[in-house]
Amino acid sequence: MSLPRKLLAEGLGTALLLAVVIGSGVMAERLSGGNVALALLANTLATVGGLYVLIEVFGPVSGGHFNPAVSAVMAWRGELPIVALMPYVAAQLFGAMLGAWLAHAMFDMSLLQFSAKLRGGTGQWIAEGVATFGLVLVILRAPGSRVAAMVAAYIGAAYWFTASTSFANPAAVFGRMFSDSFAGIAPASAPGFVLAELVGAAVAVGMHRLLSVPAPVSPAGGGDV
Amino acid sequence: MSLPRKLLAEGLGTALLLAVVIGSGVMAERLSGGNVALALLANTLATVGGLYVLIEVFGPVSGGHFNPAVSAVMAWRGELPIVALMPYVAAQLFGAMLGAWLAHAMFDMSLLQFSAKLRGGTGQWIAEGVATFGLVLVILRAPGSRVAAMVAAYIGAAYWFTASTSFANPAAVFGRMFSDSFAGIAPASAPGFVLAELVGAAVAVGMHRLLSVPAPVSPAGGGDV
Amino acid sequence: MSLPRKLLAEGLGTALLLAVVIGSGVMAERLSGGNVALALLANTLATVGGLYVLIEVFGPVSGGHFNPAVSAVMAWRGELPIVALMPYVAAQLFGAMLGAWLAHAMFDMSLLQFSAKLRGGTGQWIAEGVATFGLVLVILRAPGSRVAAMVAAYIGAAYWFTASTSFANPAAVFGRMFSDSFAGIAPASAPGFVLAELVGAAVAVGMHRLLSVPAPVSPAGGGDV
Amino acid sequence: MSLPRKLLAEGLGTALLLAVVIGSGVMAERLSGGNVALALLANTLATVGGLYVLIEVFGPVSGGHFNPAVSAVMAWRGELPIVALMPYVAAQLFGAMLGAWLAHAMFDMSLLQFSAKLRGGTGQWIAEGVATFGLVLVILRAPGSRVAAMVAAYIGAAYWFTASTSFANPAAVFGRMFSDSFAGIAPASAPGFVLAELVGAAVAVGMHRLLSVPAPVSPAGGGDV
Repeated sequence: MSLPRKLLAEGLGTALLLAVVIGSGVMAERLSGGNVALALLANTLATVGGLYVLIEVFGPVSGGHFNPAVSAVMAWRGELPIVALMPYVAAQLFGAMLGAWLAHAMFDMSLLQFSAKLRGGTGQWIAEGVATFGLVLVILRAPGSRVAAMVAAYIGAAYWFTASTSFANPAAVFGRMFSDSFAGIAPASAPGFVLAELVGAAVAVGMHRLLSVPAPVSPAGGGDV
Repeated sequence: MSLPRKLLAEGLGTALLLAVVIGSGVMAERLSGGNVALALLANTLATVGGLYVLIEVFGPVSGGHFNPAVSAVMAWRGELPIVALMPYVAAQLFGAMLGAWLAHAMFDMSLLQFSAKLRGGTGQWIAEGVATFGLVLVILRAPGSRVAAMVAAYIGAAYWFTASTSFANPAAVFGRMFSDSFAGIAPASAPGFVLAELVGAAVAVGMHRLLSVPAPVSPAGGGDV
Repeated sequence: MSLPRKLLAEGLGTALLLAVVIGSGVMAERLSGGNVALALLANTLATVGGLYVLIEVFGPVSGGHFNPAVSAVMAWRGELPIVALMPYVAAQLFGAMLGAWLAHAMFDMSLLQFSAKLRGGTGQWIAEGVATFGLVLVILRAPGSRVAAMVAAYIGAAYWFTASTSFANPAAVFGRMFSDSFAGIAPASAPGFVLAELVGAAVAVGMHRLLSVPAPVSPAGGGDV
Repeated sequence: MSLPRKLLAEGLGTALLLAVVIGSGVMAERLSGGNVALALLANTLATVGGLYVLIEVFGPVSGGHFNPAVSAVMAWRGELPIVALMPYVAAQLFGAMLGAWLAHAMFDMSLLQFSAKLRGGTGQWIAEGVATFGLVLVILRAPGSRVAAMVAAYIGAAYWFTASTSFANPAAVFGRMFSDSFAGIAPASAPGFVLAELVGAAVAVGMHRLLSVPAPVSPAGGGDV
């Protein structure tokens, strides 16, 4: 596939992902009458279904990253050409912003807005690190035919078991900055989240190696890789 | 398979789909005591399960469209004979109406009724367009063995991330007009929804092409289609 | 496999199925504080998960019917020896009763009890017929590798879209008679439910034939069955 | 794979499993405003998603037991070397404790704590026995490619149909002792739960044999194992 088509897939996929995350958050908040657990439950299920479908649909075209941390890991492993990394990230960030605006358009909200929801603190940062660690480990170790289902199931769990509701994606952080709604994050809180995510992704790469290193080879014999 | 059998499958499948959508909406509204988020959650899960099963069951017979927009796309792509399009749509619309009546019969409601629930406005129409765009894109790009699961997961997400709760189906609009219940839509609101759906379906066809065009071919060489 | 082992599988499987249905109903009712929609939602999800697993686990041994209506259909189609039908049904009914008692033992309730919950009326009977019609159609048409997932998804939807919450199983009716709890049914209401289920199953067999009949054969030519 | 790598997988997997169970319990309790059914529903869905992914991810390395009762069964069947059993159990217990602490770190709770939630009595012990019986039976009989999905679905059902919310895992009991939160269990209640789990696991091994014994062999003929 040519690069422009891959970038279209990454941009459109990330836009739809953010529309799902933000849109279902708005719908859930409007309908749940202040019951936050119920709102997050609906937000979770919509995200799980949407993420599964988006990875299946766009994966064959571009890999279906929708996530700069994932693209960086893929570039580092040689599965994405280095020269494609920056364009991928740009497409993801641009798509994420458009996705927020699409959600606003659907819910008759003003398009341009910024979240005022501060998110941070030690626990939240650890949580974002753990969330991204898990996501990247799943992506690196999942068999190809199951990666979409596994990523979706993982994120569904991580919405609940991490204190940060698992953004686990710098593009998601970027897009959510543009929405003063249930799923939003204040711009001032973004750098902490992104930094924690990158650390989590790096640790996952190391852990993946640790789980995969071949057994030590005797000097004279052949390896058993 | 012969056309009558395909029409039976489309009609019965659409009837059961509408019975699922409307019936679970009635049940959810009755049990949820005014908690709309909880009602929509139950409505969503029932729709996801039912849609998955119906596509698996009737897909091998008729394609399992249950949706005039999908049948139109298939006819346009040559996967459904043009002469079969109108019979398909008729079977879907007739089935949808019967499905509404079946739901009413099960819940001891008067069979013939019309929804008074107005749905419309710019946001809702954009939402219906986005919902159908996504549905058709999923159908066009899903591998055959996963299309049922992917369509069901997509619609489950779209119930929440689109402001219109994602009808995404002119036959569903038609059938829901006949039910003055949770899932209903006033007849006056139907044309706007159907128009938005058709636009969304057409855009999806174009986007599918854009994501699939072969790489440019050098003047002397052969194509790589 | 020998018949005794098949009967063990049907009996144990039906016992566990009823323990899941009744037990999760008790748990849901106790925790939900009168929110019936939430209780039915939990009851539904537990049933979906349990049914999926039980069919996968016991299917290879006995077919995983857990349901006299299904066994009768299989016997009628020659997929279950006629002489095995009555033992199958007996194992299912006995297992269902034991399953109710097992649920009661787990929840510290008196083992022997009878439901006082009357269920019936035209709508409920139509609903039971529709529920069993759908279940049998799914079983007859599902590809073998997906039947467990499809039956589970179907029942999950049917808990909500049928007015009767879809017993769809004479053994389930029998077992639920023995539990004066969320999932129970008064013995006086049982015959109506069972009759409706048998009618629904018979209609499904006819519909399956209608969807499967070969195209008409020309007098001189061979069939294309 | 070498043993240290397997132990890393068991330890890390069990840690993440407990972080999922305890973390999602904390999140659910905080958000649900005292609605216990809603809290358990969220806790269930997070556990189902997390367990599915963890078994898929770590299964190829270590078997993905995360559970001393499962490891004991595997050792008894000769599928795990006897000498590896104690290291496996140690890794699981250590991981479980770390997982509790990880959850606490993410939610800004004091790391070291002990549950005060007493769990026990005849019903609860029967429930733990039934829960573990079912889990082990599923593991012994599931086809390899579906074991992760089946175990996850089973545990999701068992959270609701067993009165004990289905710990079904001595390492889970151990880890939950260290958390005075929704998912916790008082240390004094642990021995009863673990004993019930071991009995349930043993009964499952016997039942698995009963369902698998070869048909009787005629005196002169060969067996059909």
